[in-house]
Amino acid sequence: MTHATASKTAAGRFFEDFRIGETIRHATPRTLNAGDASLYSALYGTRFALQSADTFAKAIGYPESPIDDVLAFHVVFGKTVADVSLNAVANLGYAECRFVKAVYPGDTLTSTSEVIGLKENSNKQSGVVYVRSRGFNQHGDTVLDYVRWVMVRKRDHHSPAPDAVVPKLVEAVALADLGSACPAIERAAYDDTLSGSPNRFEDYVAGERIDHVDGITVEEAEHMIATRLYQNTAKVHFNQHSEGQGRFGRRLIYGGHVISLARALSFNGLANAFHIAAINGGRHVAPLFAGDTVFAWSEILETSVLPGRDDVGALRVRTVATKNRPCTDFPLREGDGYEPNVILDLDYWALAPRRP
Amino acid sequence: MTHATASKTAAGRFFEDFRIGETIRHATPRTLNAGDASLYSALYGTRFALQSADTFAKAIGYPESPIDDVLAFHVVFGKTVADVSLNAVANLGYAECRFVKAVYPGDTLTSTSEVIGLKENSNKQSGVVYVRSRGFNQHGDTVLDYVRWVMVRKRDHHSPAPDAVVPKLVEAVALADLGSACPAIERAAYDDTLSGSPNRFEDYVAGERIDHVDGITVEEAEHMIATRLYQNTAKVHFNQHSEGQGRFGRRLIYGGHVISLARALSFNGLANAFHIAAINGGRHVAPLFAGDTVFAWSEILETSVLPGRDDVGALRVRTVATKNRPCTDFPLREGDGYEPNVILDLDYWALAPRRP
Amino acid sequence: MTHATASKTAAGRFFEDFRIGETIRHATPRTLNAGDASLYSALYGTRFALQSADTFAKAIGYPESPIDDVLAFHVVFGKTVADVSLNAVANLGYAECRFVKAVYPGDTLTSTSEVIGLKENSNKQSGVVYVRSRGFNQHGDTVLDYVRWVMVRKRDHHSPAPDAVVPKLVEAVALADLGSACPAIERAAYDDTLSGSPNRFEDYVAGERIDHVDGITVEEAEHMIATRLYQNTAKVHFNQHSEGQGRFGRRLIYGGHVISLARALSFNGLANAFHIAAINGGRHVAPLFAGDTVFAWSEILETSVLPGRDDVGALRVRTVATKNRPCTDFPLREGDGYEPNVILDLDYWALAPRRP
Repeated sequence: MTHATASKTAAGRFFEDFRIGETIRHATPRTLNAGDASLYSALYGTRFALQSADTFAKAIGYPESPIDDVLAFHVVFGKTVADVSLNAVANLGYAECRFVKAVYPGDTLTSTSEVIGLKENSNKQSGVVYVRSRGFNQHGDTVLDYVRWVMVRKRDHHSPAPDAVVPKLVEAVALADLGSACPAIERAAYDDTLSGSPNRFEDYVAGERIDHVDGITVEEAEHMIATRLYQNTAKVHFNQHSEGQGRFGRRLIYGGHVISLARALSFNGLANAFHIAAINGGRHVAPLFAGDTVFAWSEILETSVLPGRDDVGALRVRTVATKNRPCTDFPLREGDGYEPNVILDLDYWALAPRRP
Repeated sequence: MTHATASKTAAGRFFEDFRIGETIRHATPRTLNAGDASLYSALYGTRFALQSADTFAKAIGYPESPIDDVLAFHVVFGKTVADVSLNAVANLGYAECRFVKAVYPGDTLTSTSEVIGLKENSNKQSGVVYVRSRGFNQHGDTVLDYVRWVMVRKRDHHSPAPDAVVPKLVEAVALADLGSACPAIERAAYDDTLSGSPNRFEDYVAGERIDHVDGITVEEAEHMIATRLYQNTAKVHFNQHSEGQGRFGRRLIYGGHVISLARALSFNGLANAFHIAAINGGRHVAPLFAGDTVFAWSEILETSVLPGRDDVGALRVRTVATKNRPCTDFPLREGDGYEPNVILDLDYWALAPRRP
Repeated sequence: MTHATASKTAAGRFFEDFRIGETIRHATPRTLNAGDASLYSALYGTRFALQSADTFAKAIGYPESPIDDVLAFHVVFGKTVADVSLNAVANLGYAECRFVKAVYPGDTLTSTSEVIGLKENSNKQSGVVYVRSRGFNQHGDTVLDYVRWVMVRKRDHHSPAPDAVVPKLVEAVALADLGSACPAIERAAYDDTLSGSPNRFEDYVAGERIDHVDGITVEEAEHMIATRLYQNTAKVHFNQHSEGQGRFGRRLIYGGHVISLARALSFNGLANAFHIAAINGGRHVAPLFAGDTVFAWSEILETSVLPGRDDVGALRVRTVATKNRPCTDFPLREGDGYEPNVILDLDYWALAPRRP
């Protein structure tokens, strides 16, 4: 009986269960629809016109409003948790995230993870696993992919270490890899009043910093509703009975929730950065808990035209989120680390329309 | 750098930024869909059959279930906040709200506000701004309009006062202006069992008072999810970090949330008042906070047939909401003001089917 | 005026208002759509592939993803509350629940309750009412039906007792009554990787017990949003002002919320039990409150092939939910009753695909 029980319940992979080159197909496929888009909107208050109104989307060249890029990311990510990070000690980082194809209501997403790196820790109790995860639509087209690395416990400390393989990751996604999810944009039809800002690609300059002003306080019900919407099953987000006895004494909020909040806040200053084309990297510097208030600011790291396109340009943006601390003075580093209230340091490429 | 930053972030208009006759077009357009209707239903528990079931809607003459009138109002209102009331000291009132055309899933709403009144306060620190806000669908048809007046801070106390203009507002929307959003209703096909009440237009008499009995306690997560669904960005609803240091020490709940709760509660007694045709005026008498329980009662102020229509009649209703106080004894005025637990005093026209 | 008021507001039926053989038609009809499915998913985190992805549904023989069985149950149940249990002292049980026809987005549900039993209590203050409630789609087809019995207050203790009628209820729904809501399943097309488990019907044996491992903490906002989604108006779930003065000092969570949580948790161990074909009986052993963490385990009571079908088999499952207590050691009975942390004891038939 005990054996039958053990075999029915997924315990997640341990470090020694991963093999270089192996591709893991994840459960559960998910059809995204208008209901998911409404919930996403209600959870974060996002106001980007493209994702909010079919009329706006059609006017500029999309067939209809696409699913928010970050929502698609969360759904693809959520599926990987049960197979990749159920026994994780820590999520260490992600990089090379490319949004390859737009996702529309009615599309069904599935995901896979290819093991591209393994490195046992010197204490032999855990190791770092690198996976390249890919999200696909119902036609088998890749909609997004990214690399994630995570520290995973070993089942047995005596099991032998695999040969260490650490993938080379680019610091930023190449310009040639940006924009395939964005159709040709009708610059003249892009209505800056409806979109909420007169500032287009040309108005941003490298080094510019923008305080996104507003703050949003997060509630337990909100982050759990969001994280379940993504079918992300990481235990730390949901179970106060066990987390109450854990390191923080409380439920930890999914890092992706912070990204979505920061992206929604960034509307005030970046309203025309309508599409996230790539995430170069992200660090969750400190945990967020219910009751905390999230603020954000951004720095324009780089601006670049896109090869072969004159409709949109790429802004490389660093968005920093804090908790319980307004961002008027752009808090960031302190000594070798971060100021205590910084929770997210995100580096991404966003597309904005060029002037007609 | 500082200048670039300031120019990218919307600071909202101050009193001296408004000009009589000016029309402000608001961001962000919003396509409403079945997901929004589901969320609205889940947030308030509304049970009016027309908005709940396509079959019921079709049977009585609608093409399908329309979007709840108050949801459409919130979405149109939400867009005006960033331009009109971001620097408001107080929302003073609204009037002459007409629901002109039904909104259906798939419709995209935009809104504008025309400045129709300006009056500086004697302290020269702020002034009252009157706007007529209009909501449009994707065909450019007006779906609803209303007048709102709000006290807005001045940026510079020394800037000169404009000539005072105060618009004349009607006490109640005229009968001739009611019902354009309501198709011809098949009275015989209107199923009083499914709708939840045998009482039709003829059964209500002026002076009649109805206790709506039930109470609903409000949570922080609920009002913030709702208010974000409407893309309403008023800071006081979301930011505990700043509100904790403010007048109330806590987040203030969007007044429209109270209207929606009171309307949902009013089902018990007004189940066949299926359409709000106009809001004559509304006062948010006291603030509502998370943890409070909302109750409501209504008085029928007036009943009237509609010119040229024999399918529906108009009930002029005063719905009063309270917090933490049942409405068995119809609490309302006390001296020159309101009883301490009264939070909303709303005067509106609702349509109800006539007897076959 | 007082009389008019009383007549407009529904006070619910008292024990003496029920008549054997009477069929009550309930308000409010409800069209279920993709937005409801999204919300349900976000409230519970359910991961069953059939209900999550249209592609998966089509591959195995459904026209599209059906509405979750338990969501359909909640919607049918919710309508009965205002007529059957508004004056209930206690919900005593339910049985013989059959899921007869699949519900799809766009379907409109209505419900009726036939009074099939009445038995006054010896104290003459209340009595037990048995109803067979039925849910119908817009074509008039029964989608599900079940028997519920509930203790209802008398309005007048002196009103005469009706002849006692207590219906005979089967212990478990017969095999011949299972599966009509499930089309012929393409066993070979059923993808065990996407569905999240390699275990099919043949892999389960009677007596087997499965700990579903995870725990989910429940918040006030969540259970109220859920229960309003079902248009369930039972007062105890929503009104802290009155419940704060009641037996528990707080809002009681709708029992159906626990069933949905337990079903979602059961994915970890029963991922291929994709359809609930019948609920044989359920007992809500103890109340659940916000802040509590729900765990669950299941025992396979019986496994059976279905007459005339070789695509799916039936698992009779007992799922037990607890609060604030992991289920590693399968807590259940203690003496004549239940262990103190057990909150739900549910007996149902689920269908799982057979091996190709």
